[in-house]
Amino acid sequence: MIPKRLAVLGSTGSVGEQTLAVAAAHPDRYAVVALAAGRRVEKLAEQVRRFRPGLVSVADAEGAEALRGLLGPGLAPQIAVGSAGLEAVATADADLVVAALVGAVGLAPTLAAVRAGRDVALANKEVLVMAGALVRREVAAHGGALLPVDSEHSAIFQVLTGEDRDAIARLILTASGGPFRTWSAAQIARATVAEALRHPNWDMGPKITIDSASLMNKGLEVIEARWLFDVEPGQVDVVVHPQSIVHSLVEFRDTSVIAQLGLPDMRVPIAVALAHPDRLPLEVPRLDLTAVGRLDFETPDTKRFPCLSLAFEALRGSEAAPAVLNAANEVAVEAFLDGGLAFPAIAELNATVLEALAARDGSGALRDLKDVMEADTWARARAREVREVLAGERGSA
Amino acid sequence: MIPKRLAVLGSTGSVGEQTLAVAAAHPDRYAVVALAAGRRVEKLAEQVRRFRPGLVSVADAEGAEALRGLLGPGLAPQIAVGSAGLEAVATADADLVVAALVGAVGLAPTLAAVRAGRDVALANKEVLVMAGALVRREVAAHGGALLPVDSEHSAIFQVLTGEDRDAIARLILTASGGPFRTWSAAQIARATVAEALRHPNWDMGPKITIDSASLMNKGLEVIEARWLFDVEPGQVDVVVHPQSIVHSLVEFRDTSVIAQLGLPDMRVPIAVALAHPDRLPLEVPRLDLTAVGRLDFETPDTKRFPCLSLAFEALRGSEAAPAVLNAANEVAVEAFLDGGLAFPAIAELNATVLEALAARDGSGALRDLKDVMEADTWARARAREVREVLAGERGSA
Repeated sequence: MIPKRLAVLGSTGSVGEQTLAVAAAHPDRYAVVALAAGRRVEKLAEQVRRFRPGLVSVADAEGAEALRGLLGPGLAPQIAVGSAGLEAVATADADLVVAALVGAVGLAPTLAAVRAGRDVALANKEVLVMAGALVRREVAAHGGALLPVDSEHSAIFQVLTGEDRDAIARLILTASGGPFRTWSAAQIARATVAEALRHPNWDMGPKITIDSASLMNKGLEVIEARWLFDVEPGQVDVVVHPQSIVHSLVEFRDTSVIAQLGLPDMRVPIAVALAHPDRLPLEVPRLDLTAVGRLDFETPDTKRFPCLSLAFEALRGSEAAPAVLNAANEVAVEAFLDGGLAFPAIAELNATVLEALAARDGSGALRDLKDVMEADTWARARAREVREVLAGERGSA
Repeated sequence: MIPKRLAVLGSTGSVGEQTLAVAAAHPDRYAVVALAAGRRVEKLAEQVRRFRPGLVSVADAEGAEALRGLLGPGLAPQIAVGSAGLEAVATADADLVVAALVGAVGLAPTLAAVRAGRDVALANKEVLVMAGALVRREVAAHGGALLPVDSEHSAIFQVLTGEDRDAIARLILTASGGPFRTWSAAQIARATVAEALRHPNWDMGPKITIDSASLMNKGLEVIEARWLFDVEPGQVDVVVHPQSIVHSLVEFRDTSVIAQLGLPDMRVPIAVALAHPDRLPLEVPRLDLTAVGRLDFETPDTKRFPCLSLAFEALRGSEAAPAVLNAANEVAVEAFLDGGLAFPAIAELNATVLEALAARDGSGALRDLKDVMEADTWARARAREVREVLAGERGSA
C-alpha cells in the first residue's frame, strides 16, 4: 500500500492532534509530509519527532528558532513562518491537506490548497461560512475534492457516497437544540453566560458553545452545507434531535431517507475524511441503539432561536452576506461572553448588521479573498456600533 | 434513454402489480418484455394490453386459452404455460428479472434467471430462505446481481451502495416486534389467532403476519440477509424498533452506523431495485421525522420469541437447515391458524424439527434444487408428526 501523504494545517489544535493520532494508528496508510502550527512549538517538536515531516511552519521567526533548538541537530525539516509558511504547507506535495486551523487565518492557506488542486479535508468552518461562493468556484476550477470534517457534514458526505447528486431532495442537518431547547423566551432573555456554556452533548470551546445555544452554529452549518454539497439553500433543512446520535440525514427523490448515526466522537469524521472511499478500523466506543433506547425529533423554533433564520436569510442575500453574518456574530458572542449583551441581543445584533448590508451599495460578489476580508472588516465595524447601542439599551433598562 | 427491459415473475400479485405501476410511471425508462402470472388471467390480460410484452406465461393450457380469448386477435404475445412458462419468462431477453412469486414455486425460475446471468430483483423470500447457499454460489458463478425488494434488505442494500464490503462490521435488521411485543409469556401462551393477526405497521397476508408476531419473519430475514449480502451469520443483528421507520442499519468498522428510513411503502424498495444505481422521483408520502417525533429501539427478547434464535441456529447448521426451518414453520403456522396449535407451539414445533435434522445422517449440502426440495419434503413430514404430538398435548391439557 502506498501511504497517503498528509499536510496538516493546525496540527497542534484539537482536530490536528486527532488527525495525527488516526494517522499514527495506520502507519502503512499515511505519511505526514508537512505540518503547520502557531505558537505551540513544544507540541509541534514532539509531532516532528514522531512523524518526520520534511516541512513545518510556525507563527514567526522566534518560534522557528525555538523549534530548531528543541529538535536539535538530528532533525532538520525545512521551517517556514507566518502566512507564507501556512501557504507552503497548504501547497506541499501532499495527497490530502487537512485544514484544521480555527478562524479566518485558515482562509488563505485553504484557498491556496484548493487552487493547487489538492483534496482538502475541511475542519476550518470559516472557510465555507465566509467564502463559500468563492471556494466552490475554485474547487470546480481546479478539480480537487472537499471532504468535510465535522460530524454533521461528514454524515451527509457518507450518505451521498455512491448516490447520484440529481437524486437529492434535501439535506437534513440535526441540531441538539442546545441548553435552551426547553426554555421559554423569557427564560432565555435572562440566561447567564454559565447557563449558555452548558452544552448537553459535546465538549467544545466557548464561542461554538454559545453558537450552539443560539442555533447560530447550526445556521453556519447550513451555510457550509449549501456550499460543500452545492445544493440550493431551499434544499437544506434543520431538525432538532436532542440525543445527537443521528448526525444528519439526506432525503432522496424516491422518499428514501438515509442517515448516519454514531456516538459523538470527532475521530470518526476525521477517519472518514482520511480514508474515503475506504473506512478505517477504529478503536472508539460503538453505538448501541438499544442502550440509547430513544431518539427524538422536533421542528426548530425560529422564534426563540432567530439566528437559524438569519443564516437562511444570508444565503438568500449577496455572496458576502454569510461572511458579514459570521463577523457580526463573532462580535456579538464576544460581547455576550464579556457580559455586555443579553443573550437575545446576539440575534438582534446579527439581524441589524445583515439589514445594514442589504441597504449597502455594491454587488457583494466575492471575487477574491480581498472581497471576503473587506466584508468581514465592514461587518465588524458595523457590529461594534450596534453593540454599543444594544449595550446602552441594556444599561438603561 | 434506452429503456431497461423487465421480465416479471408473479405480475398479478401485490409486488408484481406495484412493479408495473412504477414502470408505467416511467415509460421512458422501462419496457416490459415478459410477464408470468398464475390463474389471474383477466388481470394479466389487462397488463398485456397496457405493456405489450412479447412473452407471457400462465398456470396451464386452460388459462392460456382463456387469455387468448380475452386478448382477441389484435394482441398475440407468445403464451407459455406451467413451470416451462415460468422458466421461459425468467430467461427471456431482459435486463432485470423481478422475482415476485410467492413460495417455493418461485425457486426454479429464479434459479434459472440467475443461471442465465440475469440481474434479479428479489421479492420472493423463499428463494434465499430455502436455497441461500445454492443461489449465492450460482450468482457468483454467473455474474448477475441480486437486488432485494423488501424494506429491510433494500435499506441495507441502499446503505451499502458505494461502500467497501470489507468495511462492514454488522448488518442490523429492525423488527417492529409485532403485536405481542409488550405481552408477557403467559399472555402470549393464550394468544388467539385474531390477536396474532393484528400487525401494528404493515398490512400483509396471514402467514407473514403470524411470522411477524413470532419474530420468525425476522429470523427468515436474517437468513436472507446472510446470503444476500454474503456476510457471516454473526455479522447479522436484530433490533426491535416499534415504529418501523428505520428500515435497517449497517455498522461499519469505523463505528459509523448508516440507516435507511421512510414510511412503510413497498413502492420505495421496488423503485430502488428497478432504478439502481439511480433513484426515481416517486409520488408517495414523504417521511416527516418531526411528525413521527420519536423512534424507539429495544433488544429482542428471544425467551418470549424463540423463533428468532432458531433462525441463527439454522444458519449455524447444514445448508439444508434454513429450508427445513422454513418448511416446519409453514406447517406450524397453518396449524396455529387452523386452531390446532397454541402460539408458543409454533416455536416448539420448529425447534423439534431442527433438532431432528441435526440428528439426521448426511451432509445437508444443497447441490441442486432436488436437495432443497428433498429437505423441504422431509421437514414437512416430520413437522406433521410433531404437530400431532403437540396438538394431542394441547387436547389433553
